[in-house]
Amino acid sequence: MAVEIPPLVKPSVLRRRAGLLGECLAEFLGTFVLISFGCGSVAMAVAALPGSGRTAGPTTFFLGAGDWLLITWGWAMAVVFGVYVAGGVSGAHINPAVTLAFAARRKFPWIKVLPYWISQVIGAFAGAALVYLVYHDAINTFDAAMKGPKTGGHTVASFSIFATFPAAYFHGGIWGPLIDQIVGTAFLLMFIVAVIDLRNTAVKANLGPLVVGFAVAAIGMSYGANAGYAVNPARDFGPRLLTYAAGWKELAFPGSSPGAYSGYFWVPIVGPLIGGVIGVLIYDLLIGDILHQRAAMGLRPELGRARPEKTSDEE
Amino acid sequence: MAVEIPPLVKPSVLRRRAGLLGECLAEFLGTFVLISFGCGSVAMAVAALPGSGRTAGPTTFFLGAGDWLLITWGWAMAVVFGVYVAGGVSGAHINPAVTLAFAARRKFPWIKVLPYWISQVIGAFAGAALVYLVYHDAINTFDAAMKGPKTGGHTVASFSIFATFPAAYFHGGIWGPLIDQIVGTAFLLMFIVAVIDLRNTAVKANLGPLVVGFAVAAIGMSYGANAGYAVNPARDFGPRLLTYAAGWKELAFPGSSPGAYSGYFWVPIVGPLIGGVIGVLIYDLLIGDILHQRAAMGLRPELGRARPEKTSDEE
Amino acid sequence: MAVEIPPLVKPSVLRRRAGLLGECLAEFLGTFVLISFGCGSVAMAVAALPGSGRTAGPTTFFLGAGDWLLITWGWAMAVVFGVYVAGGVSGAHINPAVTLAFAARRKFPWIKVLPYWISQVIGAFAGAALVYLVYHDAINTFDAAMKGPKTGGHTVASFSIFATFPAAYFHGGIWGPLIDQIVGTAFLLMFIVAVIDLRNTAVKANLGPLVVGFAVAAIGMSYGANAGYAVNPARDFGPRLLTYAAGWKELAFPGSSPGAYSGYFWVPIVGPLIGGVIGVLIYDLLIGDILHQRAAMGLRPELGRARPEKTSDEE
Amino acid sequence: MAVEIPPLVKPSVLRRRAGLLGECLAEFLGTFVLISFGCGSVAMAVAALPGSGRTAGPTTFFLGAGDWLLITWGWAMAVVFGVYVAGGVSGAHINPAVTLAFAARRKFPWIKVLPYWISQVIGAFAGAALVYLVYHDAINTFDAAMKGPKTGGHTVASFSIFATFPAAYFHGGIWGPLIDQIVGTAFLLMFIVAVIDLRNTAVKANLGPLVVGFAVAAIGMSYGANAGYAVNPARDFGPRLLTYAAGWKELAFPGSSPGAYSGYFWVPIVGPLIGGVIGVLIYDLLIGDILHQRAAMGLRPELGRARPEKTSDEE
Repeated sequence: MAVEIPPLVKPSVLRRRAGLLGECLAEFLGTFVLISFGCGSVAMAVAALPGSGRTAGPTTFFLGAGDWLLITWGWAMAVVFGVYVAGGVSGAHINPAVTLAFAARRKFPWIKVLPYWISQVIGAFAGAALVYLVYHDAINTFDAAMKGPKTGGHTVASFSIFATFPAAYFHGGIWGPLIDQIVGTAFLLMFIVAVIDLRNTAVKANLGPLVVGFAVAAIGMSYGANAGYAVNPARDFGPRLLTYAAGWKELAFPGSSPGAYSGYFWVPIVGPLIGGVIGVLIYDLLIGDILHQRAAMGLRPELGRARPEKTSDEE
Repeated sequence: MAVEIPPLVKPSVLRRRAGLLGECLAEFLGTFVLISFGCGSVAMAVAALPGSGRTAGPTTFFLGAGDWLLITWGWAMAVVFGVYVAGGVSGAHINPAVTLAFAARRKFPWIKVLPYWISQVIGAFAGAALVYLVYHDAINTFDAAMKGPKTGGHTVASFSIFATFPAAYFHGGIWGPLIDQIVGTAFLLMFIVAVIDLRNTAVKANLGPLVVGFAVAAIGMSYGANAGYAVNPARDFGPRLLTYAAGWKELAFPGSSPGAYSGYFWVPIVGPLIGGVIGVLIYDLLIGDILHQRAAMGLRPELGRARPEKTSDEE
Repeated sequence: MAVEIPPLVKPSVLRRRAGLLGECLAEFLGTFVLISFGCGSVAMAVAALPGSGRTAGPTTFFLGAGDWLLITWGWAMAVVFGVYVAGGVSGAHINPAVTLAFAARRKFPWIKVLPYWISQVIGAFAGAALVYLVYHDAINTFDAAMKGPKTGGHTVASFSIFATFPAAYFHGGIWGPLIDQIVGTAFLLMFIVAVIDLRNTAVKANLGPLVVGFAVAAIGMSYGANAGYAVNPARDFGPRLLTYAAGWKELAFPGSSPGAYSGYFWVPIVGPLIGGVIGVLIYDLLIGDILHQRAAMGLRPELGRARPEKTSDEE
Repeated sequence: MAVEIPPLVKPSVLRRRAGLLGECLAEFLGTFVLISFGCGSVAMAVAALPGSGRTAGPTTFFLGAGDWLLITWGWAMAVVFGVYVAGGVSGAHINPAVTLAFAARRKFPWIKVLPYWISQVIGAFAGAALVYLVYHDAINTFDAAMKGPKTGGHTVASFSIFATFPAAYFHGGIWGPLIDQIVGTAFLLMFIVAVIDLRNTAVKANLGPLVVGFAVAAIGMSYGANAGYAVNPARDFGPRLLTYAAGWKELAFPGSSPGAYSGYFWVPIVGPLIGGVIGVLIYDLLIGDILHQRAAMGLRPELGRARPEKTSDEE
């Protein structure tokens, strides 16, 4: 049953939104959803759930496996619904590394890259602002209860709700986190182009957004603790701007690590942009090209174990 | 193979149920399932699982990340099966905020709003009564073992099985929880209208109820701890009525917070009703209208990353 | 690509298996998978994972929320793959309560009920035997390390790997666990008949087994701790026979509760058989009959929120 | 919208990859993804997440249920995306036991078995090398902080990130772990051939890889702790080679167990190869043959509870 719903705005306004402007609005909203739910789930684990993240007492702080499961599924669902909301209008990149890689290898128009990037960062900033609006009571109560070093009254623990920093075991080294971001984003893009490749086992029934969310869960569960798995420049930079404005100071810019170096902020921007392109190149080189060639030669895809088969000769 | 199953009641009775009466029965049953399983999962985490929720000892009480995962997946599955059971008859709103938002922007008939609301609240009350029937031994044993303040022999911890209250860090403020409820329900409705919008990436294969359940999991994982993520007036008000009748007294009405104010009960009613309408308006303004306009202009939807594509030129 | 696979046995043997005999073999294998994985996951949480289930030290024993999540997802996956394996041959009841309810209200032939039941119980016994074979080193090491009361050298904790008993807070009462089993199985059948009802929102793409597994996860998360959510006479009785034979003695028969009564074994048999029929009757009365009547009157199903819709008038 | 993407390499090169060479590249990449994410998730639980895996202090070490959930979902997602990436080219066996079982009973060409095996082991080695590259800071910091016995400066805990060993409760016995590997892999293959069997309830909408990932989650949750659920010779042998090269010495070869025997390395190779064939034989004997026979006799499959049905006589 088709429901007739009159638009909210005038057709003359709507016509202007049918193109790039509408896509930018969709990227804004999709990234806003991503950060509102992703950072929201970290706010839950760190500050809002009593007992979580404080296992080690009021001075030292860490997240255990249970907290990490909450965070990984939280970010996964954030991706799922960010993509469902924006997908039909803009393709729901909601990640500058996706936009760049699609421009490099998926014929996404280069002219749209900067508008997409700007929309994504603004959406991420707005999402972080919403998380701060909703959780500032929880955050302030948490920071006041914590002992140990503070920056502008805030802890690095509450900073972790919004943006990322490398693990203490890197002792200030930059290559470890940079490699981590390149690797994580390369896999992200490899998985995205795999699950939408119609010559491969492309997910159907419009469940692609769900599986893309699972891809981000996979990265969080397997490549999450080194440097917080930003794998998305907007996801880190937008909320980082918010925390800088809201008083976390040098934790945000130039960006520091617990007890270590400063000047970290560019790593989760540059690493993902490099990694995303690498991921698509590897996929095309080892998989995509071969599927292309087989199609050109009129060959049928191999029988995959994950694809339905018959166990006997009939039909 | 179609199975011929004779109806249980006479055709003359059934004919009367083909319309609004049947829809009200379905809303009753769907909301009954929602509360039976949602509140049931909190009863597990709080009172029935030995050790859960008592990490801090017999006087102070809290739920850790593991408990919260149990609760968020429990409520998610409660939604999934509430919607699967009732969906084909009534559309499975099972939430007055959904009914109101659909009346405001999805042409759901205004005349049906009040009957739906009443069915939902009765269903929620009945679900809470079932949880109390099944878990009263666990609850009474738990409340007897807990030290600290009690109301009518009951603790605020066992009250949390049924209905919601704001976190202690709000110190009695009403705006924080109200904003939380508006935000959570706005996202809920935004996600619901996104995943059923055929112009967008609408979930197929009748898996929509599963994804809607995941949406509620997302809200629980990211916006759950501030005020218990009612995001549904019937979900909070029905069980609240039950606890009032069963002896939790002023914890239920006017509704209080640990060590703080009273008169809270209206927040999880008013907040969701406002938030739901806002969520649909944002979706239509930024997404729905654009998809409508593109269709009117004969434009094809953009190629989304979550939708199958081809990686080469053939076909 | 259809693969030609010659059968393992002679056509004359196979012809005999095309009917009830084959269905019984499938029910055997499906229930064998169910118990092998379900009880296997409890063996993991109780005995095999170091640290799990022993949080309270070597004398008292309990499972926390993390253990419970492992168990609920373990049983859910056990159902999923039991149904995928057996579904095409026998319908994969793998539960006498399902078989009875389908005979009562889904025209499943009464003549097949007893053969199905027997196959299910034998499959469950064999599955429990496999779990004992694979985990007896872990179980014996665990039981030896535990202090406190033992029966034949075994603890009630290791008994819980195989079969069920009521929570201590029932103090030996039989009505609480019996109601619990009736309620849990009523919901199980209600959900099963909902997700396969083509007039309702029947799950497509052959993902029904996955959603049925989620239904059992829901019951475990919301109605699991009172009495171990057998909700299946074969699931409890088969492994109980195994533990009786393997030395758990009166913990198995007549079946006891920690520090309390004996004679419990019949509850997880009778409760589910009653509950399953009730669940189908409620579904048919409140939902199925109405969908039947609407179809008879030529009415279209209501537009459900979980089903794709259009947001504007075109198409 | 089909996107025209020019291949990265020359057609003359591509043509050579359209056959076995391309399949070997795909098996390499799929197994690389499998190990990169599977072992990555164990690195998270053991070494990278502060607090995880060290609940018992710096000398004794164990993983609790929360850690185990992280690991089981991590490996499940590793399978999901390994299969999505490679599926369309090679069928995504990514497991020598799958390749052998398919050769034995699914007409996979015997001539391809060895090339597939070699590609899988190289891919697994490369994946383990990536995990070591990304996590060596975390691993070294972890090993330095641990007290107790070390081999080449490394602990058995950090070895567990890469390859497997039997649980302490086997006291050096080889039959327990061997049976465990046979059982686990038999179920794995049984589930794989079930969910791709078009005569059975084969998963559609290209969601097979997701359900196969869930099968591995099931094995991890129910048969994981005895011997680390390799259920895949390449998954264990490839990373074992890496750890041998990287300094874990006799923990890797001949492979030892905590405080016990040596010479374990062949068990997770031989066990899975045997088990996989057994699993397919059981499936074909009890299920596949019967479905074949029914089709040959023109019988329709039974109405399964997990498949859509009608509740009344129309249509």
